[in-house]
Amino acid sequence: MIIVLRHDAEQEKKAVLKGRLKALGFDIHESRGVGSTLWGIVGDTSVIDRDYLMANEIVHDVKRVQEPYKKANRKMHPEDTVIEIAGRKIGGGHFQVIAGPCSIEAKEQMVEVSKSVKASGATFLRGGAFKPRTSPYAFQGLQNNGLKLLLNAKVATGLPVVTEIMTPEHLELFHDVDVVQVGARNMQNFQLLKALGKSDKTVLLKRGLANTLEELVMSAEYIMAGGNENVILCERGIRTFETSMRNTLDISAIPMLKSMTHLPVIIDPSHAAGIRWMVEPLAMASIAAGADGLMIEVHNDPETALCDGPQSMTPEGFDALMGKIRKTVEFFGKTMDC
Amino acid sequence: MIIVLRHDAEQEKKAVLKGRLKALGFDIHESRGVGSTLWGIVGDTSVIDRDYLMANEIVHDVKRVQEPYKKANRKMHPEDTVIEIAGRKIGGGHFQVIAGPCSIEAKEQMVEVSKSVKASGATFLRGGAFKPRTSPYAFQGLQNNGLKLLLNAKVATGLPVVTEIMTPEHLELFHDVDVVQVGARNMQNFQLLKALGKSDKTVLLKRGLANTLEELVMSAEYIMAGGNENVILCERGIRTFETSMRNTLDISAIPMLKSMTHLPVIIDPSHAAGIRWMVEPLAMASIAAGADGLMIEVHNDPETALCDGPQSMTPEGFDALMGKIRKTVEFFGKTMDC
Amino acid sequence: MIIVLRHDAEQEKKAVLKGRLKALGFDIHESRGVGSTLWGIVGDTSVIDRDYLMANEIVHDVKRVQEPYKKANRKMHPEDTVIEIAGRKIGGGHFQVIAGPCSIEAKEQMVEVSKSVKASGATFLRGGAFKPRTSPYAFQGLQNNGLKLLLNAKVATGLPVVTEIMTPEHLELFHDVDVVQVGARNMQNFQLLKALGKSDKTVLLKRGLANTLEELVMSAEYIMAGGNENVILCERGIRTFETSMRNTLDISAIPMLKSMTHLPVIIDPSHAAGIRWMVEPLAMASIAAGADGLMIEVHNDPETALCDGPQSMTPEGFDALMGKIRKTVEFFGKTMDC
Amino acid sequence: MIIVLRHDAEQEKKAVLKGRLKALGFDIHESRGVGSTLWGIVGDTSVIDRDYLMANEIVHDVKRVQEPYKKANRKMHPEDTVIEIAGRKIGGGHFQVIAGPCSIEAKEQMVEVSKSVKASGATFLRGGAFKPRTSPYAFQGLQNNGLKLLLNAKVATGLPVVTEIMTPEHLELFHDVDVVQVGARNMQNFQLLKALGKSDKTVLLKRGLANTLEELVMSAEYIMAGGNENVILCERGIRTFETSMRNTLDISAIPMLKSMTHLPVIIDPSHAAGIRWMVEPLAMASIAAGADGLMIEVHNDPETALCDGPQSMTPEGFDALMGKIRKTVEFFGKTMDC
Repeated sequence: MIIVLRHDAEQEKKAVLKGRLKALGFDIHESRGVGSTLWGIVGDTSVIDRDYLMANEIVHDVKRVQEPYKKANRKMHPEDTVIEIAGRKIGGGHFQVIAGPCSIEAKEQMVEVSKSVKASGATFLRGGAFKPRTSPYAFQGLQNNGLKLLLNAKVATGLPVVTEIMTPEHLELFHDVDVVQVGARNMQNFQLLKALGKSDKTVLLKRGLANTLEELVMSAEYIMAGGNENVILCERGIRTFETSMRNTLDISAIPMLKSMTHLPVIIDPSHAAGIRWMVEPLAMASIAAGADGLMIEVHNDPETALCDGPQSMTPEGFDALMGKIRKTVEFFGKTMDC
Repeated sequence: MIIVLRHDAEQEKKAVLKGRLKALGFDIHESRGVGSTLWGIVGDTSVIDRDYLMANEIVHDVKRVQEPYKKANRKMHPEDTVIEIAGRKIGGGHFQVIAGPCSIEAKEQMVEVSKSVKASGATFLRGGAFKPRTSPYAFQGLQNNGLKLLLNAKVATGLPVVTEIMTPEHLELFHDVDVVQVGARNMQNFQLLKALGKSDKTVLLKRGLANTLEELVMSAEYIMAGGNENVILCERGIRTFETSMRNTLDISAIPMLKSMTHLPVIIDPSHAAGIRWMVEPLAMASIAAGADGLMIEVHNDPETALCDGPQSMTPEGFDALMGKIRKTVEFFGKTMDC
Repeated sequence: MIIVLRHDAEQEKKAVLKGRLKALGFDIHESRGVGSTLWGIVGDTSVIDRDYLMANEIVHDVKRVQEPYKKANRKMHPEDTVIEIAGRKIGGGHFQVIAGPCSIEAKEQMVEVSKSVKASGATFLRGGAFKPRTSPYAFQGLQNNGLKLLLNAKVATGLPVVTEIMTPEHLELFHDVDVVQVGARNMQNFQLLKALGKSDKTVLLKRGLANTLEELVMSAEYIMAGGNENVILCERGIRTFETSMRNTLDISAIPMLKSMTHLPVIIDPSHAAGIRWMVEPLAMASIAAGADGLMIEVHNDPETALCDGPQSMTPEGFDALMGKIRKTVEFFGKTMDC
Repeated sequence: MIIVLRHDAEQEKKAVLKGRLKALGFDIHESRGVGSTLWGIVGDTSVIDRDYLMANEIVHDVKRVQEPYKKANRKMHPEDTVIEIAGRKIGGGHFQVIAGPCSIEAKEQMVEVSKSVKASGATFLRGGAFKPRTSPYAFQGLQNNGLKLLLNAKVATGLPVVTEIMTPEHLELFHDVDVVQVGARNMQNFQLLKALGKSDKTVLLKRGLANTLEELVMSAEYIMAGGNENVILCERGIRTFETSMRNTLDISAIPMLKSMTHLPVIIDPSHAAGIRWMVEPLAMASIAAGADGLMIEVHNDPETALCDGPQSMTPEGFDALMGKIRKTVEFFGKTMDC
């Protein structure tokens, strides 16, 4: 961390600030130029708040050199993390495909879709029971009943399941869920992250619509700091000025997150554009850019889907796509074997 | 709501969709042009999901005419809502100033700051006990003890208090809090909004960093739909590409929110820019644009503040500002009397 | 400028880079910490490109301390610049109002509108002859004929005129124009800025829709570096995610630009929101935040305007607004006397 | 185009507006619902300005159904456009790679780099002579001399050349240039687009940093409306909130632009992230998403490059990348044969 002092900083105030920093255990290396004085702060600066320093009137600017994340930092853990869930590995060359409907709507629907996506080669089943919706008047998901239908499909197919949690109070309901998803709107719901940090569930953490990659990694760090290091990062499109599609997939997030962290990174091409016919090109691009997996919405009858119908693939469409995914994953040197 | 059908939509599929819409209680007015067919959907379309229609292959586009919010809609409630809290009115020409530190740090600090801001004319006391922080390693607030210190300051000064809630589980701790704040990062924490909708607390709802005004109003609608109509909207700066300050105050939000809704609208100029010397010009602009109140951070010693020091005013600075606020509020025709 | 070296930078490569920097006339102050080495670069670093340094493999990061602008920098010129145009001063406490139609459409229109806005108290006349339009099929302005009609209205009213230039080739046509406007889409049309830098025209430089304030100031610096220091900065709304209005007025730009530079700063509340009824609250907020002037669209018959009708005020509406503007400018301590 | 009238629109004013629209040659289909009246406007509405209608006080909203672009519209021209330049085809399954330095710096540099990229398989040579730079104090390119060095390298290698134009006045200097590039900051420099529309040069049009895809297509339409239909679209990264890299590559632009238009779409992965090691994953993703070509910066000595060194590849790095590009283009079914 570098502190740039104001050129007119009084000696007295400098001594006070220096004293405070030393009391916190830091060393200070001063460098005096013509127009400014710099202090290089040596020690674990991830615990100092930049604002704490900026509030001091003799401080002109504070610039971080060290990343503020530790457990998620690739520098501390150069090898890719490989997470194993119900015998399926993700990360480190292992590629997984999660598929299923946006919302769980009915028992038959779940069983039908889950058998179908399993036959096409999906290795995880997804489905939303608790649905975050912008409008209080929109369908909010089947809630507890939805969870039961999802777990029923898990038994029927043997596929591990992924579903979204919205509040720490619900955590006990997720006992048999394999991967707990934190949605984009809850990426900085810190109480939820802390609760998950104390659980033993694998967490699929989605990036917020207007969050930086560092903020995403800091949210993963919340979970990891609590003791739970099984975090999968998911890019699902960011908000931009573009109006022809719902969100803009940030493909660069894949290589950048992989350079910042050692965690697996997956892509949700269904939410990214919100348009069915764009799922395929975005899925291909994601594999090419180095993703460790995909999460794809599939619905037995998209036209009657209670949620996200425009982006849901039909079982037939998904089956054809899986053929291409398998070949492309292999071409880019990853494996879909468990 | 207008549905634009694809020009090649088959009669049969049109009949199926028409049947579904009629079954939901809607009337349909068809208008056939040369290149396209339009259906005007008549009825309470706030309950139909745009996506539900977009998923249908014969639908080219769906355009809303009616706003998706009802209880917050000024059309349903043309008069300004005036909320009264501990004898202080806000909205409908009544202007209030909320002041205090970002974080509650110690008993003496709270009492000192609260007496000081009261003497300067603030009518509400603010202070954070539960702090949402990007980093798990940053100061997270004094939590329950912080709440106690805030309530102690309430007793000492007689000022009603405003403080932030982060999760529904904490609601019972907020029994003696006058105004419960929902922070920007929790604007779409729908479980929290639902819990507040069932409470009798006045809610101060902050706009998310990258949310539209309609999304803010929809979050207010979540609270109101639950039965709690005491919602104050707060603009606190949005994320933009600007790097010279923390966030960009959206001053236009004031007149636009007042045209969309009947709820009081206040501004937080401290968080907006994150810079102490910018609080004054932004406060003046907010009054001029029609705000119903201000929320300002004041700290007895900003240089040692555990949070948001760079934007906190000193008690002396705040006192001088209050003089200008009073004159300006009067100039623009509002009243600061309770 | 601070260079943060990679912790594993080889001595040899450091010597090469140090040699290059010294050859460019810079001094280097080295500060060695535990995890990193910092170089403070002393000299006029506005001429070094950050990228030139970042390309070096031993460089981890480069952080600017000094602003990259000189002539526009308030540090070099602490007093407000006051520009005088046809006897009217702007800046340093002098406030001016520019009014007129978006596009010049016909001789009678221009004379009618210009007499009307003059009678209401506007001190400059605006009107577009060359119009930048997103569509090649939209009205592109009356071009040369439009300029003639504007200059005709200048003679008829005695008001100095403001109009937009789109390419350096047109500069000679602007001989009798008092203030040459550079539109938002041309803020980084550097050939145009260079040409204006060599002219003696006052330039009204509009901020681009997604440009930072530093980029705006750097574009002013282009003009000033050419020898023309008569530059007025204009904020006219930035692109954000908001959909209820055209652009979002960045009110904070006023105090921030005034702290960065000594140039006058004006606001265009008509383009900012693109909505007639929002002009008044945004104009009031702009005065309150410290603007040096306003540019407002007025049309004799907004419903038939060939451009920007939704945001144009009627002459009656403008007359009423001018009454409020006068009182508010006076309340905030500026003068509208020439 | 659909006009939504205000529910209280007076018959008289409706008749006036209807009369104006009919005079412009449009048919109107009225649809009356309970809360609103809709008019479907039939005819070539690309010539009506939405604002012209919005300015009318009886109009509540105006929604476009038809795209505002014609010549670029895939609906009017379902087949991919294939552009042939010096015997090389781009579009319709033909893939091209443009390579070379950001700036032309010296004769030997250009010859060295151009021979090298040709040997590696690049089929076009790029190099900047006129450089748009944010700072007037930064290197502005070798200008006319730079162009000469580029054309010299064209003769030496036989490769067609691509270089950027900044103002219409320079067009005659570009006589021997094969592809004229319009940079991101000039995407809406409409005078430049019009001048290029009248020329016979192939134009490589880059998307602006914060422009929508429709705006990009409208800028292509400006060129095409002038008679020049040889336009290649280029996505080069958009401005987002992300700070870990310069811009964010919008990979979705590829499939979306290809659905909107029939023009070739290429990607500039060098400018997108501004980071050398990210060029490869972004290039792979671009091919996978369906791009028709790539433009890549290569410099013989990136550490001394006068511009964009951090993103430039070395000749060796580019050679290795070309091997992967060839295999990947083939895997995804396109051809790199001329």
